[in-house]
Amino acid sequence: MTELYDQITSVSNPLIKQLRGLERKKTRNESGLFMAEGARLVQQGLDTGWQAEVLVIADKTLDRAHIQSLAEKAAATGTRIIASPERVMRQITRKDNPGAVVAAFRQRTYTFDDLNRTGPGIWLALYEVRDPGNLGTIIRTADCAGIAGLVLIGTCCDPYSVEAVRASMGSLFDLRIVSGVDFTAFNTWRNAHGIALIAASVNGAQRHDDISYSTRTSLLMGNEQSGLPNAVEAACDHLALIPMRGGADSLNLAQATAILSYEAWRQQGYPGASI
Amino acid sequence: MTELYDQITSVSNPLIKQLRGLERKKTRNESGLFMAEGARLVQQGLDTGWQAEVLVIADKTLDRAHIQSLAEKAAATGTRIIASPERVMRQITRKDNPGAVVAAFRQRTYTFDDLNRTGPGIWLALYEVRDPGNLGTIIRTADCAGIAGLVLIGTCCDPYSVEAVRASMGSLFDLRIVSGVDFTAFNTWRNAHGIALIAASVNGAQRHDDISYSTRTSLLMGNEQSGLPNAVEAACDHLALIPMRGGADSLNLAQATAILSYEAWRQQGYPGASI
Repeated sequence: MTELYDQITSVSNPLIKQLRGLERKKTRNESGLFMAEGARLVQQGLDTGWQAEVLVIADKTLDRAHIQSLAEKAAATGTRIIASPERVMRQITRKDNPGAVVAAFRQRTYTFDDLNRTGPGIWLALYEVRDPGNLGTIIRTADCAGIAGLVLIGTCCDPYSVEAVRASMGSLFDLRIVSGVDFTAFNTWRNAHGIALIAASVNGAQRHDDISYSTRTSLLMGNEQSGLPNAVEAACDHLALIPMRGGADSLNLAQATAILSYEAWRQQGYPGASI
Repeated sequence: MTELYDQITSVSNPLIKQLRGLERKKTRNESGLFMAEGARLVQQGLDTGWQAEVLVIADKTLDRAHIQSLAEKAAATGTRIIASPERVMRQITRKDNPGAVVAAFRQRTYTFDDLNRTGPGIWLALYEVRDPGNLGTIIRTADCAGIAGLVLIGTCCDPYSVEAVRASMGSLFDLRIVSGVDFTAFNTWRNAHGIALIAASVNGAQRHDDISYSTRTSLLMGNEQSGLPNAVEAACDHLALIPMRGGADSLNLAQATAILSYEAWRQQGYPGASI
C-alpha cells in the first residue's frame, strides 16, 4: 500500500510539530482538531463517521492486516496517511510506548438543536467541571448509561483534551456534547422542552433514589470543589442527596455521576440497554 | 515551637532521600511506610489514629496556626518533625507545587480476623486490580458506601502507592484492607461466615438490580482487562450484569464498583448512612 502514504521521519517536520501541539488547547482551538491514540480508538472514530484529517502509522506496523485495513478505510474518506518511525510517534504522543497509530480528528460542534428530542430521554449537564480525567470518565459512563446528550455549562475543561479523550475510551465518538453555554441558556432550553432538572447536591433534602425521575429528565452535576451556586440549585426541580456513610468525606464527581445516572436509568427500565 | 522540629535543608539528606523513595514499592515494603501529602490528608491520618513516623513541614508555613496544631498533635504521638525549604518538599513529592506538609505513615496489615463481623455488612473484593488510580477511587467510594472491609485478591496494585493514596482522598485511613490473599482463602473465609458472593460480570444472566443482596454480602470485581477467571465465577452465588446501552463499550472498573456497591447498599436501606 505504498501509494497510500507519505513517509515522515523528522521530528521537526511542521506537520509532526502541529500534531504534537494538539496537547495544547490553543492549538486544538485554532486547528479544530484533536488527537486519538491507538488502533482501537481510531477505528471507533472512523466507524462512527468522524473525519480523521491525518493518520500516522508506526512504520514497523505497516504490514499488519488490521492496520492496513484501517489505513485504507481512512484514505477512502480523504485522510492523509503518514508512515513514521517510532521515535516520531513518541514525539507526537509524548509516550515512551506509543501505539501503532495516532490520528488527528476534526472536532464536532453541537448546539441544543442537535439534542432536541420529542421522546423520552435522560440528559446530563456538568457545571464547571475542571478535571479532564473526570470528564472523560463521565463521558464513558454517560455513553454506557444511554445518556441522550451532554451539556457543559460555564468554564469546563475541554472534552477534546488528550486526557479526556483517553479516559472516554471511545465514548466521545458516541455522545453529542454541547459546550460553552451558560446556565440560563441551558435552563431556558430544558424548560422549553419540558425537561425536568435534578441536581446532585449535598443540600438535597431527598435521597437520590426517593426522587421520581420523569421520562424527560436532565441530571446536573456541580464543580468538583464548590458544587453548584445557590441560584442554580434554586432553579432545579429537585436536589438529590446521594447517601454516604456518616464520617465519610465525599464521592468523586465521576462516581456520583455514575450512581445518579444509573438510578435515573433504572427507574425508567433501562431503555436502549442491550439486555 | 522551635523545640519541636529539626531543620533539614539538603536534598541529599538520607531521610529526605528515603521519603522520596517511598514512590517505589520496594522502598515502601522495606520500610513499612507510605506517603500522605497535604495538611488535610495528614490531619485525617492523625485523627484516625494512624502512626506518622515523620512529618515534613514547609518552613514558610511554620507560623500558620493549623500547621502548628498539626505538628503538636503529631509530636505528641512520637512523630519526628522536620522543617524544610520548599525545594526539599518538591524533591520529596516530585511536585512543582508541594503542599505545606507531607508525612510518612506506617502501613497497617489486616487479616480476615480483622474483618470478622457477626452482624450485617457489605464487603468488597477486587481480583487483580492493576490501576492504582482505580484502586484509590474504589477505596474512596467503598468508604462512602459503608463497605465493611476490602479484600485484594491475587496480584493487585498497592493501596499504599502515592497515586492510590491521592485518589483515595483520606478514605484509606477509614477502611480495613486485607491484601495478598488468593481466591481460595477468600472464598473459604466468606463461606465460613455465611457471606453471599456476588460478582459483576459480563457473563451475568441477571441484571445487577434484579438480584437480592442478602444482609451479609461480598461484592467481587474482576481485573480491568480480563475480568474474572471461569473458576472464580463458578464459585459465586450470583453474577450481576450491569446494563449498558447497546453499542457502548464498557464501564470503567471504579464506575462499575460504585454502581454495584450503591445498589447493594440501597437494597439494605443504607445502614450507617448519615441521612
